[in-house]
Amino acid sequence: MPNTHYYGLILAGGRGTRFWPRSRKRSAKQVLNVFGERSLIQATVDRLKQVIAPERLWVLTSRELRDAIIGQLPEIPASQILAEPAQRNTAPAIGLAAQVLATQDPRAVMGVFPADHLIAKPVAFRQVVRAAFRGAQAERLMVVGIQPRWPETGYGYIEFPRGSKAGGPEPLPVKRFHEKPPLAKAKRYMAAGHFYWNSGMFFWQADVLLEALRRHLPRTATVLAALPPFGSRKFTSEMETVFPLCENISIDFAVMERAENVSGLATTDFGWSDVGSWNAVYELMPRDGCGNVTARDHICLDAHNNFVDARGKMVALVGVKDLIVVDTADALLIAGRSRAQQVGDVVKALERQKRHDLL
Amino acid sequence: MPNTHYYGLILAGGRGTRFWPRSRKRSAKQVLNVFGERSLIQATVDRLKQVIAPERLWVLTSRELRDAIIGQLPEIPASQILAEPAQRNTAPAIGLAAQVLATQDPRAVMGVFPADHLIAKPVAFRQVVRAAFRGAQAERLMVVGIQPRWPETGYGYIEFPRGSKAGGPEPLPVKRFHEKPPLAKAKRYMAAGHFYWNSGMFFWQADVLLEALRRHLPRTATVLAALPPFGSRKFTSEMETVFPLCENISIDFAVMERAENVSGLATTDFGWSDVGSWNAVYELMPRDGCGNVTARDHICLDAHNNFVDARGKMVALVGVKDLIVVDTADALLIAGRSRAQQVGDVVKALERQKRHDLL
Repeated sequence: MPNTHYYGLILAGGRGTRFWPRSRKRSAKQVLNVFGERSLIQATVDRLKQVIAPERLWVLTSRELRDAIIGQLPEIPASQILAEPAQRNTAPAIGLAAQVLATQDPRAVMGVFPADHLIAKPVAFRQVVRAAFRGAQAERLMVVGIQPRWPETGYGYIEFPRGSKAGGPEPLPVKRFHEKPPLAKAKRYMAAGHFYWNSGMFFWQADVLLEALRRHLPRTATVLAALPPFGSRKFTSEMETVFPLCENISIDFAVMERAENVSGLATTDFGWSDVGSWNAVYELMPRDGCGNVTARDHICLDAHNNFVDARGKMVALVGVKDLIVVDTADALLIAGRSRAQQVGDVVKALERQKRHDLL
Repeated sequence: MPNTHYYGLILAGGRGTRFWPRSRKRSAKQVLNVFGERSLIQATVDRLKQVIAPERLWVLTSRELRDAIIGQLPEIPASQILAEPAQRNTAPAIGLAAQVLATQDPRAVMGVFPADHLIAKPVAFRQVVRAAFRGAQAERLMVVGIQPRWPETGYGYIEFPRGSKAGGPEPLPVKRFHEKPPLAKAKRYMAAGHFYWNSGMFFWQADVLLEALRRHLPRTATVLAALPPFGSRKFTSEMETVFPLCENISIDFAVMERAENVSGLATTDFGWSDVGSWNAVYELMPRDGCGNVTARDHICLDAHNNFVDARGKMVALVGVKDLIVVDTADALLIAGRSRAQQVGDVVKALERQKRHDLL
C-alpha cells in the first residue's frame, strides 16, 4: 500500500518546442501521444500510481496547457493541477508545491518528476522511486543519477565520490553538479565511472526543501510563505500577484548546487529517456526493415532511416534517408535527423514573425 | 485573322503519374496549375487561340478527365471535347479526329498538340505553328524538331539531313526518327548538330493523314471510316463499340516512321519543355536565394535546392537539400530530386495495392 505521506509533483510547464509542429502552446510535448495511446504525462501518472496514490499527485503547468491536462488526468483532483501565473523556472514552482504540502501534512515527502520523460522499465523505476523516498525521509535532498550509456552532451552530470558503485539502493553523497559538457569532457566523465546523468527527478521532505529555500533563495521563500492557505478564497488571486516576484531560476542552480545535505542514487538502467527531440523518438521506436519509422499508410522506395509522423495520410518516400517528417493540418516539418535539435529554431523564427496561429 | 481551315487537336489523355500525389485519374497533369493560375491545358489553349479559333479546337481525353476539362475550357464547344472509349495510344485518337474533320471540311489542316507541355516564348511558338501549317498544306506530314539544349535521354530525336540549318521557316525532309537514346548516343546526336528533339507536335491535312493511315494502319483506318457522321445519334454508341478494335499504337510508330512524305521544322528555341517530372517544374520555377522553390509560407534553415508544393500550410525545412515535397489532403510525397522519374513507381505500387482512393 502506498505510503500516505508520499506526494508527487509533476512538472509540466515546458513547451517542448523541438516537437513542433505537433507541439504547440496548447498541446505541448507532455500532452502528446508520440509513442502510442497514452500521452507522456498520462504515462508518467500511470507509472507513479503504484507508489503514490493519484489523490496525492500534483501538477504544475502553464495556463495554456491546464485544460488539456485536466482532461487527460481524470484521476487527479483538478484543484491539484495548478497553472503558474508566470514562467519562473523550477525553483519557485517546486517551492510553491512544498509550501502547500508542508502546510497540509507536516510529514509530507515529495518526489519531483518531469512530465515528459519516457521510462521503459517501470518495475525498476518504482524500486528507484521507493529507495529515493526512503533516502529523503532522513532529511536529505535526494537526486537520481543515471549511469551514462553514451557520452551525452545534452544532459547535466552528477559527480559521486570516486569508486562509487552503481545500482545500490543506498544514497551516496553528491560531490558536485556539472553542467552540460562538451564532447571530450563527456567522454572523460563516462570513462571515469563516477559521473551520472542528472535525471531531473528530486526527492525531499517538503519542510526540508523549504528550509533550503529560506537559506539559498530567501526572496522566493518569503513570497511563498506569505501565501494564504491553499484552497482559501484568496489563494489564487494572491498567487497571481506574488508569484511573478519569485526569482526566475532552476532548483538545480538555486538549491542543489549550494546545499550541503545533497545525496543521490547512482542507478543503472530503468530505461530512461528525456525524449529530447524527434530524433530521440526515432531512436526509441520500432523500425521497419529499411530503418524507417513510418505511418501505417506508407510506400518506401529506396528510403532508409527516416522518421515520419503523418496521421491519416499516405506518405511516399522515394530515395531519401535520415529525414524527420512531421505533418499536421497547418504545418509540415522536414528536417535532417542530425538537425533535430534545430527544430526549436523554427519556433523562434515563428515567434519573430508573430505567427501565433502556429505557436 | 486565323485561317478558317486550321484546326487544332489537343491530346489530353495522359495521366502524368509522375505528378502524383497532385495528379490523379480525375485531376491529371494537364488540368493542374503547377505554374500559376492557369492549368497546362488552359495555357495550351491560350497560346493556340491566336492561330486557331477556339471553335476549331478539339480535345481528346479520358472519361475520367472530360468533365474537368470541359469546366476549364469554356471557349471550346463541349461537343468537341471527346472522351476516348478506351486507351489506344495516339494513332487511333488522331485518326478519329482526322476522320471527323475531313468529313466536315475537306480542306481541313490539323495541328496536333500535347496538352501538358510548357512553352515560355508564345510569340516564337506561334511563328513555328504558322510555318508548320503552311508546310502541311503541301501534302506533307509535318513534325516539329527542337534544337537540343542538353543531351536528353528522355526524348525521341528527329534526324534531318547532315548540315541542315536550324531556325528556318522552310520544311526539311526527315531522314529518320530515333527512339530515346542512351546518354553516350544523346551526346553524339547533340554534337552532330542535325538531330533534333521530337516535340510531339504534328501538322497535316486531315485527308493526307487518313490516306497514310489506310496505307500503314489499315484496320484502324477501316474502323474509323465506318463510323456514322459526327453529331449523329449513332456516332457515340458506335464509337464506344468500335474504337476498342483499333490498334493500340502511337502515331510515331504507326505512321511517321514508315511514311515517305515526312518533313519537319528544325526550330531553335521557343522555350519548350515537356514538364516531365516534378524536377522539371523545379527547374522551370523562380527560386529563392537558397535555390528553393517553396510555398508562400515557409521557413528555411540551412535548406537548399528543394522543391515544395504544399498549399495553405506552413512548411519548415531544416538542414535538407535536393528534395521534392508535395503535400495534398490525403497524401504526402517526399522524394530526392534526382529520383523524380521514380514517382510513377509509387503510383504503380498504389495500383498493386488497389488504393483507388489515391489514384
